[in-house]
Amino acid sequence: MIPLADPARFFDSKRVEFKSILDRMIDSKHFVLGEMVSNFESAFSKYVGSKYCIGVASGTDALEIALRALDCQGKDVVLVANAGGYGSIACRAIGARPLFVDIEPETLLISVQAIIDRISINTAAIVVTHLYGLAADVKKIDLAVKEKLGHSVPIVEDCAQAHGAMVENTKVGAIGTIGCFSFYPTKNLGGLGDGGCLTTNDATINSKVLQLRQYGWVRKYDQETEGGRNSRLDELQAGFLALLLCDLDERNAVRRSIVKKYYESGASLVHGAFTDSEKYAGHLAVCLVDERPELMRRLAELEVSTAVHYPYLDTEFAANRSFGNVELPNSLAAKNKVLSLPCFPELTEREVDQVCRVISKNIQYFRKS
Amino acid sequence: MIPLADPARFFDSKRVEFKSILDRMIDSKHFVLGEMVSNFESAFSKYVGSKYCIGVASGTDALEIALRALDCQGKDVVLVANAGGYGSIACRAIGARPLFVDIEPETLLISVQAIIDRISINTAAIVVTHLYGLAADVKKIDLAVKEKLGHSVPIVEDCAQAHGAMVENTKVGAIGTIGCFSFYPTKNLGGLGDGGCLTTNDATINSKVLQLRQYGWVRKYDQETEGGRNSRLDELQAGFLALLLCDLDERNAVRRSIVKKYYESGASLVHGAFTDSEKYAGHLAVCLVDERPELMRRLAELEVSTAVHYPYLDTEFAANRSFGNVELPNSLAAKNKVLSLPCFPELTEREVDQVCRVISKNIQYFRKS
Repeated sequence: MIPLADPARFFDSKRVEFKSILDRMIDSKHFVLGEMVSNFESAFSKYVGSKYCIGVASGTDALEIALRALDCQGKDVVLVANAGGYGSIACRAIGARPLFVDIEPETLLISVQAIIDRISINTAAIVVTHLYGLAADVKKIDLAVKEKLGHSVPIVEDCAQAHGAMVENTKVGAIGTIGCFSFYPTKNLGGLGDGGCLTTNDATINSKVLQLRQYGWVRKYDQETEGGRNSRLDELQAGFLALLLCDLDERNAVRRSIVKKYYESGASLVHGAFTDSEKYAGHLAVCLVDERPELMRRLAELEVSTAVHYPYLDTEFAANRSFGNVELPNSLAAKNKVLSLPCFPELTEREVDQVCRVISKNIQYFRKS
Repeated sequence: MIPLADPARFFDSKRVEFKSILDRMIDSKHFVLGEMVSNFESAFSKYVGSKYCIGVASGTDALEIALRALDCQGKDVVLVANAGGYGSIACRAIGARPLFVDIEPETLLISVQAIIDRISINTAAIVVTHLYGLAADVKKIDLAVKEKLGHSVPIVEDCAQAHGAMVENTKVGAIGTIGCFSFYPTKNLGGLGDGGCLTTNDATINSKVLQLRQYGWVRKYDQETEGGRNSRLDELQAGFLALLLCDLDERNAVRRSIVKKYYESGASLVHGAFTDSEKYAGHLAVCLVDERPELMRRLAELEVSTAVHYPYLDTEFAANRSFGNVELPNSLAAKNKVLSLPCFPELTEREVDQVCRVISKNIQYFRKS
């Protein structure tokens, strides 16, 4: 069975280095927020091109802390409903109201027009998800919002699927007000467990996030900033991530080339047209298909793993319905058609070729309707 | 300088095993909530004597998830104000009202009478902290509450400082409704980073906690239980903890013997009378002293590290003052006198003897007033 993702193949090649990182951590005698975290934060902010980077326990925590740093409690947060539910979980965790907007049918990214139709003076932030690895146009959104409201609204970039994607030479995470990253093992930059970070160019936000990730402490045990939690990136994971960061760009290029091959084999890849673009980090190889259950059965028989990202819209959950019913026709249509194919840099050439052959032989299922 | 705690000394002796755990994790190809977590959960619930154990990302998350599992939102939670602030952070994170009560002046543990004076039909839970390693009398609290209200109130045991302490042959974490543990590196059972767990004998609570630690999912991506977060014990940390658990009882005995030596040297150890009791896990060696700043300066000069657990009462923080002013004379008195001395199993005999000599030579500072 060709797996959808298999981070162990990558990690397998790094065992020696991982062990030496473990040794170095024990030698350092620091196991929480020590040098490995600060070194990784420096390396990652340099990579992203942001002034600051703050490691936290997960990508979801990053979103929650970002919204809290922007004082979104009791206010509206604009976001999409087709990104797995993490954004609206973060909203509800801090008592913000998720205001769902529809997506562009071509890219499945947040619709600029839909944002403009829904924002108001009560909107405290817009969460822009760079879905499946493709960077959304944050600058365009920012300009359109300014034109409508006469002022900016902070933009939180959800970069969990797009580490390394760039728009006009600026990496995601350094374009909006705050970037939120997940380092879940299957991500483009993934550790050996949960982890995440926030990136920002704003010194005030940086200070606030530093407090929020550790109980709101201004010094040890002294809670100053309300809403603080324990959300720290593990020292060990930070050490691993600093190592794995060195391979990120190269591995992203391989991801793009895999998606390109599937696309050239005839599959209707949502982001197939972006495989030569720096905007695209090739996180997931997502097709739009009409007969998904049947195709999934066929592919399973042919030993090709598939998955649905994502099987539910946020608006389907009871907790979100209390914020009002919204019609999201493009999101709904996409939800019923999206299908992810195996996509990770350590797929062998043989495996990629096999997926391509399977696509060709079942081309009637893969054509866009 | 003799450190207050130095987990690296213990970890140093386990490097080979840690590396083999890392290898096994990579071999398993599972990096989040895999076999290492479930194996540790089994081993720890067996150790504690609880039916269930659920690994989470930290001890603070354990408290937050426990209170949510008990539906404390919008209700009162009774707790002490001298335990570092973690309990009231958990209350505020879920929208519960912390109702602070005073401590017994002898043990610095929650006062049963103070609980009875403050509980009402609005009390949704009582957080009982087994402070510095000494088990509070949970059964006595439960009986007194029943007598006053005519019904039980769920008791959350905060066991972050008392892994392995026992009352009448039952370990803490298996006495109340839910036990909350932290595996922060310096804890009696500590990993190489953050981690925590909940223990319970209640199948319904177990199911709810399993959902709450992972987005409220009833199945992947399907949010059913509101208030879910991402709070997972790292697979790698779970592997390490399962190994380190084997040494817990033995190391607790060493902790107790260290506290005993300090006590016999004349220091006014708060829990010095419990060093032969299974109720005591010897987490911190805390004295009550009158001239603390002066003594801390002296001890620093004599190369003995000290710390204050804790320098603030929860009631001093603005976020908690909004729940009403309360007088906590015993907590306040203790806060100004507590001083922690070096206490961890890997202190050398020489170091312990040195601390004992320092105590003897400065005995005027260590005598109880």
